[in-house]
Amino acid sequence: MRTMDTLDAANTIMERADAIGAISEEPDRRTRRYGTPAMRQVDDLVAAWMRAAGMEVRTDAIGNLIGRYEAAAPNAKTLLLGSHLDTVRDAGRYDGPLGVLVALTAVERLDARGERLPYAVELYAFADEEGLRYHSGYLGSRVVAGAWNPDYLTVTDSDGITLEQAIREFGGDPDTLAVAARPADDLLGYVEVHIEQGPVLEHRDLPVGIVTTIQAASRRTVVFSGEAGHAGTVPMALRHDALTAAAEFVLAVERQGREAPGLVATVGQLGVEPGASNVIPGRVTLSLDVRHPDAETLRDASRALEERSAAIAARRGLRVEWNEAGIGEAVECSPRLRMLLAQAVQAAGIEPFELPSGAGHDGAALSRLTDIAMLFVRCKGGISHNPAESVTAADVAAALDVLERFLTLLAGASNGE
Amino acid sequence: MRTMDTLDAANTIMERADAIGAISEEPDRRTRRYGTPAMRQVDDLVAAWMRAAGMEVRTDAIGNLIGRYEAAAPNAKTLLLGSHLDTVRDAGRYDGPLGVLVALTAVERLDARGERLPYAVELYAFADEEGLRYHSGYLGSRVVAGAWNPDYLTVTDSDGITLEQAIREFGGDPDTLAVAARPADDLLGYVEVHIEQGPVLEHRDLPVGIVTTIQAASRRTVVFSGEAGHAGTVPMALRHDALTAAAEFVLAVERQGREAPGLVATVGQLGVEPGASNVIPGRVTLSLDVRHPDAETLRDASRALEERSAAIAARRGLRVEWNEAGIGEAVECSPRLRMLLAQAVQAAGIEPFELPSGAGHDGAALSRLTDIAMLFVRCKGGISHNPAESVTAADVAAALDVLERFLTLLAGASNGE
Repeated sequence: MRTMDTLDAANTIMERADAIGAISEEPDRRTRRYGTPAMRQVDDLVAAWMRAAGMEVRTDAIGNLIGRYEAAAPNAKTLLLGSHLDTVRDAGRYDGPLGVLVALTAVERLDARGERLPYAVELYAFADEEGLRYHSGYLGSRVVAGAWNPDYLTVTDSDGITLEQAIREFGGDPDTLAVAARPADDLLGYVEVHIEQGPVLEHRDLPVGIVTTIQAASRRTVVFSGEAGHAGTVPMALRHDALTAAAEFVLAVERQGREAPGLVATVGQLGVEPGASNVIPGRVTLSLDVRHPDAETLRDASRALEERSAAIAARRGLRVEWNEAGIGEAVECSPRLRMLLAQAVQAAGIEPFELPSGAGHDGAALSRLTDIAMLFVRCKGGISHNPAESVTAADVAAALDVLERFLTLLAGASNGE
Repeated sequence: MRTMDTLDAANTIMERADAIGAISEEPDRRTRRYGTPAMRQVDDLVAAWMRAAGMEVRTDAIGNLIGRYEAAAPNAKTLLLGSHLDTVRDAGRYDGPLGVLVALTAVERLDARGERLPYAVELYAFADEEGLRYHSGYLGSRVVAGAWNPDYLTVTDSDGITLEQAIREFGGDPDTLAVAARPADDLLGYVEVHIEQGPVLEHRDLPVGIVTTIQAASRRTVVFSGEAGHAGTVPMALRHDALTAAAEFVLAVERQGREAPGLVATVGQLGVEPGASNVIPGRVTLSLDVRHPDAETLRDASRALEERSAAIAARRGLRVEWNEAGIGEAVECSPRLRMLLAQAVQAAGIEPFELPSGAGHDGAALSRLTDIAMLFVRCKGGISHNPAESVTAADVAAALDVLERFLTLLAGASNGE
């Protein structure tokens, strides 16, 4: 019976994801930036569901929506659940909302059974994770984690509106952001359900997976400088073509990425100068994104590629420069919470499978505050940040089942603390 | 003495190239588009030099500047000489003007010696070869060749001025363009001196070279379509990266270009979609420019690359499409005029060396009207379309010497006709 109920609940989650997904700033595509009327409308909808599920609703200084479901007894600890409700431009329906809705439904079903846990649950619906409006992600979870940088306030959006102004218009309080962190002393941790945004679970034929780490990522810019020339008049043997050098490097990046298990290496941007069909490329600027759960493997791969690029440039009579564009440190998920998740997955009749998260998540910011864990849900073709984002109700039911079993297991574990 | 005189004359050519080169539409870079006040100013300067060299000056319906130096006797044939006075944006001093000035000086020296040839000489200073303003090259020589397309007249420049309007403002007559072709019955041919715009002569340590053909060129657009995805979450083995496929192709193009002597193959433009550092490229569009003097070699190379791209796409699980962007047919230089040029080069004490022209020239348009030939002058590093364009006075002297010897040889040849 549990299974049938859970599938019904999953179908409700799908309908709610559709309802949230119908709310957009733009008529022809799904876009919800921080602080916009579309975000207000979605927050109102979710706040109503939270209240109906027995939660007390508040917002914080930046406008994160928070629903609190009290514990069985006073002075209990608190578990944070959540995800975000903002989106990228032309987004899908599940990146963010799915995690909020699965957690919401778990609480709703506790409330329906009149059940209280030995700990309180706070469900965070973050107001900004994607960073679309102010080009700086995790604005919501940074505030909660006490990692707020006051410099952000003067940043402007494409209409010239400062973040400070946007926060006020959204009903927040920019003056208290720096002290608006969620106190940590009562926290049991933070658990987030999220679509995988990759094809690994689909490939393994598994509905859910347990995240080990949010990967370390190295982002560099690489510039090959050769000699531009007339495509019709400079013989092949006398060329110093920046694009053929870059092409060799792109293939070297691919080979490097295939060398170590778990490593991914990507050239996602590549610009050619002068960029005319009849001119030999004189300069190519490309982005290099390398990720691995282990920072040392990452460093080794990056160093090997640097050497490779120098060899390519030397052989072809070009110059190559590397610029640091930012390194994101790896964030470990809590072994304790991971183990409880694995037990919950097993209990749900699913093979417990662990995988790193290549993408960043609110958990990365919250790891400063408390232990974190994540449950990934299979998504079709690994596609995300795209209207074609797709999950099945059956997989959502599995995620809900696992999260509910996790809440019970944590109740047992935290009772004993 | 001849050598010393010729070097003096070459120095005058260098000074005149500097004087022309100082005239620009733009304060910080050298740019002379069709029909602009800068072109008027350059034409006035060159017209004055033509008159001083004993030429009768006229302009035609599009504003080409023409100086005619009469033959020794009436009813003689006419040899056309020339090149263009317009430029690309941020141009050098020699691409175009050098050919006009070497021919002008040759006539000037005939006139100084009171010498007439058995044929008349008409020196064409074309008003548009580069096509910078109206994105269609050879406007000047097309009119002369009777290859005018009336559709051009409605094309607008970046300020919204139609070509028709620009022609009127420049003193031309747009209504008679279609019938403004130079009659062909009295023509001996067209000979143009031009900088090489490539490094072959420099590489061979030769001041001048004789052009065999203006090469056939194939311009195609090639599109690789794979699957975009998150750079952090999609494992290497499950990717269908359009850029790594394109990189393989770029290297295949380079290898193909090296396979046949005289073949050049270039990818000059490459665009990546979606083009974000953290997104696996889903689509790459690139330009392919292949040139060879022989149309069949060109076709074979193009076909081989098409097959190669299909194999790359198939192995990587991508799609590839080819679009025709235009094929320029090869234009043969006249064997008769080439032979006379070779004799002139030899007589000047230089090894006669033949090379194809990878770039297009006014001669390509004029080949519809009459036999054409071209003499290339070595330029530093093969650099052109750039303020760094550079030739030496000694090489200009060699070109002048060769052109003068050619005029004499042609006099002998045409006397016998």
